[in-house]
Amino acid sequence: MNSLEPVFTSLRAAHEKLAQENRAAKDRALAAAAAAIDARRLEILAANGRDVERAAAKGMKDALIDRLLLDGARIDSILEGIETVIRQEDPIGVVRSGWTLPNGLFLEQITVPLGVAAIIYESRPNVTADAACLAYKAGCAILLRGSQTALESNRALTAAIKSGLAAGGGVPDAVALCGLDGESDGGHGEVDQILTARGGVDVVLPRGGKELIRRVADNARIPVIETGEGNCHIYVEPSADLEKAVDIIENAKLQKPGACNAVETLLVHRDTLAALMPPLAARLAARTADGKGAPFELRCDGLSKAAVGAPPAGLTIKDAVEADWAAEFLDYILAVKTVGSTVEAIEHINRYGTRHSEAILTSDLRAAEEFHRKVDAACVYVNASTRFTDGGVFGFGAELGISTQKFHSRGPLGLEALTTIKYRITGSGQIRE
Amino acid sequence: MNSLEPVFTSLRAAHEKLAQENRAAKDRALAAAAAAIDARRLEILAANGRDVERAAAKGMKDALIDRLLLDGARIDSILEGIETVIRQEDPIGVVRSGWTLPNGLFLEQITVPLGVAAIIYESRPNVTADAACLAYKAGCAILLRGSQTALESNRALTAAIKSGLAAGGGVPDAVALCGLDGESDGGHGEVDQILTARGGVDVVLPRGGKELIRRVADNARIPVIETGEGNCHIYVEPSADLEKAVDIIENAKLQKPGACNAVETLLVHRDTLAALMPPLAARLAARTADGKGAPFELRCDGLSKAAVGAPPAGLTIKDAVEADWAAEFLDYILAVKTVGSTVEAIEHINRYGTRHSEAILTSDLRAAEEFHRKVDAACVYVNASTRFTDGGVFGFGAELGISTQKFHSRGPLGLEALTTIKYRITGSGQIRE
Repeated sequence: MNSLEPVFTSLRAAHEKLAQENRAAKDRALAAAAAAIDARRLEILAANGRDVERAAAKGMKDALIDRLLLDGARIDSILEGIETVIRQEDPIGVVRSGWTLPNGLFLEQITVPLGVAAIIYESRPNVTADAACLAYKAGCAILLRGSQTALESNRALTAAIKSGLAAGGGVPDAVALCGLDGESDGGHGEVDQILTARGGVDVVLPRGGKELIRRVADNARIPVIETGEGNCHIYVEPSADLEKAVDIIENAKLQKPGACNAVETLLVHRDTLAALMPPLAARLAARTADGKGAPFELRCDGLSKAAVGAPPAGLTIKDAVEADWAAEFLDYILAVKTVGSTVEAIEHINRYGTRHSEAILTSDLRAAEEFHRKVDAACVYVNASTRFTDGGVFGFGAELGISTQKFHSRGPLGLEALTTIKYRITGSGQIRE
Repeated sequence: MNSLEPVFTSLRAAHEKLAQENRAAKDRALAAAAAAIDARRLEILAANGRDVERAAAKGMKDALIDRLLLDGARIDSILEGIETVIRQEDPIGVVRSGWTLPNGLFLEQITVPLGVAAIIYESRPNVTADAACLAYKAGCAILLRGSQTALESNRALTAAIKSGLAAGGGVPDAVALCGLDGESDGGHGEVDQILTARGGVDVVLPRGGKELIRRVADNARIPVIETGEGNCHIYVEPSADLEKAVDIIENAKLQKPGACNAVETLLVHRDTLAALMPPLAARLAARTADGKGAPFELRCDGLSKAAVGAPPAGLTIKDAVEADWAAEFLDYILAVKTVGSTVEAIEHINRYGTRHSEAILTSDLRAAEEFHRKVDAACVYVNASTRFTDGGVFGFGAELGISTQKFHSRGPLGLEALTTIKYRITGSGQIRE
């Protein structure tokens, strides 16, 4: 195992240089990085092809191979993400607030880059470009630690980005990849080095499954932003528009069941069960029974099970158990629980939820306000699908993940998550009495 | 050792209740807490007297006893701090930013309380009131873990605050003290319980000496805000007004040498040595030789030592060694180093400083701008004493400490440090395409 010390040192120096660059210079370098990815498209796709081939030979599941795969459209979407990051305002040098003390001392709170970041992520190679470009725009240097499965793809992408940053007059050393050239050997002990790099790394972002995040949270001696599980809920309040409710629940569950912002438990007011459950069951059964869809599974409490009646073809119903309320299924499964009030729904969510994305469907102003105010989560929705919780959708161009913690940064992590402030204080000889 | 679990549970419930209170209700409860401290003044002073007596009997040093001591003026200053906290705007429910997505989804980033905080602090009993009242205004519950030395003082203060919060119609359970009544036994193992209370405590703030902070940072499994060491610098640039420079250096060093924002190393441009050092040496010698002042010690590099010449009475000069550049003396000692340029001064500061408070004295706009931009510290001053870095001075009424980390919060920790955001999202049936 190589030591990452020289990499940390080089990243620190690159960050210090990058922190002094103005927006025009950073955007020019990022545009050149995008151009380099575009120009090296075939090379990147070929490298990815080798990763995919090796993964398939090892028997990796289709869903995971799909996460690893790059194609022309996905490269286009990486480039669009970089364009959006370029269009964002510079997050650095923003005066957040300012005031003058009675003695005339003038204080400004201004944004500055956080420093050196590290991201530890699983197979999706687009994270390589997203994270590198967000960090660059925020004046941060970044160490990328992707999975071994995607190593060739990540190498090709990182090499393109670095050559682009150099060609655009930027700071290529602000981006480093574990396993690129002489920089490191990509070995497993590197994760531990990152997690204990006090003074070397200012924040580490684990992005991937529960186990990875837990391992990082347990072992890190440096600040972590946990991008965690999503046990998301939709609560259907009696005044909800039930036609829209069926559309929203279908979307939140089925548009991408493996996403962290997909709904996992549906909470239904008991007065709404009879009208909602039969058409909802029919819709879920229909949408998953056609084509290659797996049969859909509801895990119901007694009242909601009774409201569905005889399950339509394509749908199975099981009795919900306690563990279902806490589960992140990431699958064609939805737990359903009956509640008697908005307060009861909120209490269930605050007890079992993971503080990610929570929605109420209602036309009652008081219920909407109460839900917004009392649900403790990064994103609280009224009358919309939970699937919108995403840095791209929010307009950030890309994201470093979605934070479910409260400390430092919450929700989709864009440029702002990589900034901190400093007080810029200007006096004329003041001394303290 | 008692388990703190019931305390964590009670604090969480109190926080949830408090998070829903409006500003008027919180301010009313805080005013009642201040009134209760005022009414129980004699009781609090008597309890403090017992702490002081016990500490003196154990041979505690005068300087430490002074930190422990309460008197009428100090109680007044606690009450003034609470008044200032009451006058602060509510940090909760502030819309930080907001925008509308192309599909009409309306997003607002609003501030919410961080949750349950814990503060672990050394002897000063005013921290008990400062921390409790700041947390309360920010909608956070707080667990106070003061030193055993100040236990009776802290009990009396906390009991007064809690009875005041109750009398003012507030949420007294939002404040708990390790060692108060049945709440806990105040034993040492409680610190470890706090540091590992994932899900129970949302942030822990160590406030005290280097060892305490290091112990917390090393052992915490929950977010920490380190309130650290201050190795602060003043750089005297050739264009500085040298009369003001002598006043500012004297103030930054001697107004309170034991404070973390006191200057520890003076950096002087070589062209300024001859004009600055003799009057500065005279001033430092004069101010400390009179009364009970200890003799002042300069630790100089060769050039600055030569510039002082024969030391005046009341001043000793030693040759600086490498360790002096990294030292936080907290004493009547100042290290002095000669530099050749603003860049060299900035490099020295970024290498040896602790990112606390740094100052340049100059009349040159370019030097001031460069120093502001390139020095990496919570507070960067032009033409003022470093002693102003303080929550009270900044106008926060009180402080939880001064953060030297970049993550989450930096500089003096007031109400804002105890907040986070949530996205409040309002739709009309939007689903993701």
